[in-house]
Amino acid sequence: MRYSLWNDRIVLDEEVIIDRQDRGYQFGDGIYEVIKVYDGEVFTLSEHLDRFYRSAEKIKLVIPYSKDKLIRLLRDLVQKNNLATGHIYLQITRGISPRQHHFPENSKPVLVANVQVNPRPLANFENGVKATMVEDIRWLRCDIKTLNLLGPVLAKQEAYENGCYEAILHRDGVVTEGASSNVHGILDGVLYTHPVNNLILNGITRNVMLACANEIGLTVKEHAFTLEQLKDMTEVIVTSTTSEITPVIEIDGHIVGTGKPGEWTRKLQKQFNATIAAVVRV
Amino acid sequence: MRYSLWNDRIVLDEEVIIDRQDRGYQFGDGIYEVIKVYDGEVFTLSEHLDRFYRSAEKIKLVIPYSKDKLIRLLRDLVQKNNLATGHIYLQITRGISPRQHHFPENSKPVLVANVQVNPRPLANFENGVKATMVEDIRWLRCDIKTLNLLGPVLAKQEAYENGCYEAILHRDGVVTEGASSNVHGILDGVLYTHPVNNLILNGITRNVMLACANEIGLTVKEHAFTLEQLKDMTEVIVTSTTSEITPVIEIDGHIVGTGKPGEWTRKLQKQFNATIAAVVRV
Repeated sequence: MRYSLWNDRIVLDEEVIIDRQDRGYQFGDGIYEVIKVYDGEVFTLSEHLDRFYRSAEKIKLVIPYSKDKLIRLLRDLVQKNNLATGHIYLQITRGISPRQHHFPENSKPVLVANVQVNPRPLANFENGVKATMVEDIRWLRCDIKTLNLLGPVLAKQEAYENGCYEAILHRDGVVTEGASSNVHGILDGVLYTHPVNNLILNGITRNVMLACANEIGLTVKEHAFTLEQLKDMTEVIVTSTTSEITPVIEIDGHIVGTGKPGEWTRKLQKQFNATIAAVVRV
Repeated sequence: MRYSLWNDRIVLDEEVIIDRQDRGYQFGDGIYEVIKVYDGEVFTLSEHLDRFYRSAEKIKLVIPYSKDKLIRLLRDLVQKNNLATGHIYLQITRGISPRQHHFPENSKPVLVANVQVNPRPLANFENGVKATMVEDIRWLRCDIKTLNLLGPVLAKQEAYENGCYEAILHRDGVVTEGASSNVHGILDGVLYTHPVNNLILNGITRNVMLACANEIGLTVKEHAFTLEQLKDMTEVIVTSTTSEITPVIEIDGHIVGTGKPGEWTRKLQKQFNATIAAVVRV
């Protein structure tokens, strides 16, 4: 038996019915979060929910449940599904209404969450992955975690067809982020990462990793870098909830550093593991 | 009883069930069309379906039905619902699959269409409407009619809150199109309209209207114009499937021309009506 959260009730997966006039289905009018679960413990749940409420506010969607209630419901969901390691997928839309662009007066938001078994990609952490560069053609509010994901989908597909794990997006020659991750470069003891603005998502894992960098004495500069500068980096990393700290060892045939995950990356991974271990039993 | 088209079957509305893992719901990974019906006759159906296939191709989605079959099914849908004047809403998504960004190997596209009674907005044609200017922050493939519509939704909501019918979008000072329409300006016997490229949707009604312009001796220049030039236009028009040829008489308090629909607009509307009458009985 698998269970979903449907609005404020935990139900069997098959009970969840989505209306064809749900604005999520016709406009992508909603937002989402992906939240990691380690050995049954939800990681950085508070941070994810804070961003969930911020995203909602930015598209003027009022989430009809308190943060405390969502924390309780999501923990129940994990428990009910006996999830060990994997993630929660949580989304909310503006609800059901006959199709019109502007907000309906009386629609009730539709919230759905489910869990997914998903082991940590340890081989990627150890060996690194390949990436490809794709032009960033997305809208100018990439800070909002919305369901309008066709840009990332097409970029990711391009990466996939090129045998790559991730697409590194660039706008006007500047690296913004990955299709579903933040991108960082390390050179001469400094970690460079795109500043938080409307062009990237303010990643939860990004922020955890920046804290790890501080703890291990790696200087952090929130400065954007160009595609050319990316190629000079001795280490490149992508971060996300499910990718955690994944080293990039090759970009479109260009070998990053020595072609193996670098020393700073190893230290960051170790510190990240310690951070997880401090809150959950892994 | 109301009927929908669900894949290649006409079913009762309530039989249509959307899966929460439909990629339309989680990624907006799909495309759509809105097609006008006048007195039971579907208008420019062939043109809309051609664009439907073009949009699908651009996102690498293969529609599993022939154009002839869709024509037959959509006409059946209109008849089965006894629709007189209104529109067909048609969408297709990449189908149902556990959430991952890249395309699933074996998902089957999900097609849904329904009809909506919707009388022609004759008062708008006669009196004109107000519009507001909103920055165009959408992605750079606005030529694809995708379900990623949060940009237009937010722009339209802004227009709605300002008591306006439409949002006129502008990028880098240049007018692109409306939130759900194409925008045109008339000055000294010339109709200016944004050229067809990646920044606007190639509107079916736009093209019908441009043909009307040729027929009535109104010169057409597919040149983009700035916000400042927009204010100098003596007539401004928005076109779309449901808005047809709607005059804009006021933009953020600025009065367009005399503040009433202009002479060229009247002639275009008359010619547009003749075009409809040539193919349907209105």
